[in-house]
Amino acid sequence: MPVLITLEGLDGSGKTTQFEQLVEYLRTLGHEFVATREPGGTAAGEALRRLLLDPDLPLTIHSEAFLYAAARAELVERVVRPALYAGRSVVLDRYVDSSVAYQAYGRGLPPEFVMAINEMGTGGLRPHRTILLDLPVALALERKRQAGGDRFERETAEFFERVREGYLELAAAEPERIRVVDASRPPGEVQAEVRRLVREIWPVRQGANA
Amino acid sequence: MPVLITLEGLDGSGKTTQFEQLVEYLRTLGHEFVATREPGGTAAGEALRRLLLDPDLPLTIHSEAFLYAAARAELVERVVRPALYAGRSVVLDRYVDSSVAYQAYGRGLPPEFVMAINEMGTGGLRPHRTILLDLPVALALERKRQAGGDRFERETAEFFERVREGYLELAAAEPERIRVVDASRPPGEVQAEVRRLVREIWPVRQGANA
Repeated sequence: MPVLITLEGLDGSGKTTQFEQLVEYLRTLGHEFVATREPGGTAAGEALRRLLLDPDLPLTIHSEAFLYAAARAELVERVVRPALYAGRSVVLDRYVDSSVAYQAYGRGLPPEFVMAINEMGTGGLRPHRTILLDLPVALALERKRQAGGDRFERETAEFFERVREGYLELAAAEPERIRVVDASRPPGEVQAEVRRLVREIWPVRQGANA
Repeated sequence: MPVLITLEGLDGSGKTTQFEQLVEYLRTLGHEFVATREPGGTAAGEALRRLLLDPDLPLTIHSEAFLYAAARAELVERVVRPALYAGRSVVLDRYVDSSVAYQAYGRGLPPEFVMAINEMGTGGLRPHRTILLDLPVALALERKRQAGGDRFERETAEFFERVREGYLELAAAEPERIRVVDASRPPGEVQAEVRRLVREIWPVRQGANA
């Protein structure tokens, strides 16, 4: 049974690095899967990614939410569902929970609205497991300052506090799907826990060099 | 009292020409107003317009609807509402009814879904008057064949029949707001009726050369 696994977390949580190391690890296990990121992964998705991450293009909070939902709808229809139907698992860097945390809790849109548009856009496809890399906002911001700038770069600590709170509320509401990992620890420890949580729902193949 | 007036109709209904002539006429009356088109009219809107009208960029029906809603949200927040608040009327080439007719009736999305995302994106802003240029699909297609191609160019007559039916249902549900004009007549006659319907809700200023 193919699985859909998503990684979530604040910018600065180390998510991209953890995602890359997880993908590398799953390859060594001999798993067949597709790994991609949001927004992006399709022609329209990459075009929308450029708009979304351009800090100089003004976007209302509604249109920002619509553009994320559009990029996601493309990815689900063209990449994620075809892979799952073909028996291949999918690992995604961000998915619907990002929009609920950022656009609803962070920006202030009603969570039901953000959930509803994404429910429609994805045809209700939910991850089998979501790993939430959680850490204090001050630490995330410190790490982020060393990386490049995008639209969210200009946000305040209060914004990211709301996003973090949103993520934790989502995790509390769905504790079986969303597992919270303390991402303030050294990256190696974080990765070990991420791998363990993935293995729980995605058993290693017979004969693979685990 | 500033008014919001929208023009609607199938591609090939002569809408763009009628819109331009209406704008010209309103200028001669000395009205102060803003005239713009959808999608477009803002930085993000124009970028989205390029994506939406590119016939070679694949878009799911959901993401198409999201992108139109996003472009519209931008236009309403940055152009339409500021104009209305400043006492200036607004004339738009296409608005929410286009999405309901094309994305819901034409593409098959649930009308309530298309209405809901646009209600959110526009903050519920509705036109004071909408003029629907109606004509048989065969005639619209014949006219359209002489113009350039876009995403809708490749659609079938059945698609446009559904769009037309959608428009007429919307007009039947809101006969006071949406006025149906027979656009199969000569352009001059159509324009005369368009002007009459606009004057009904937007009286000529004292002293203007009407």
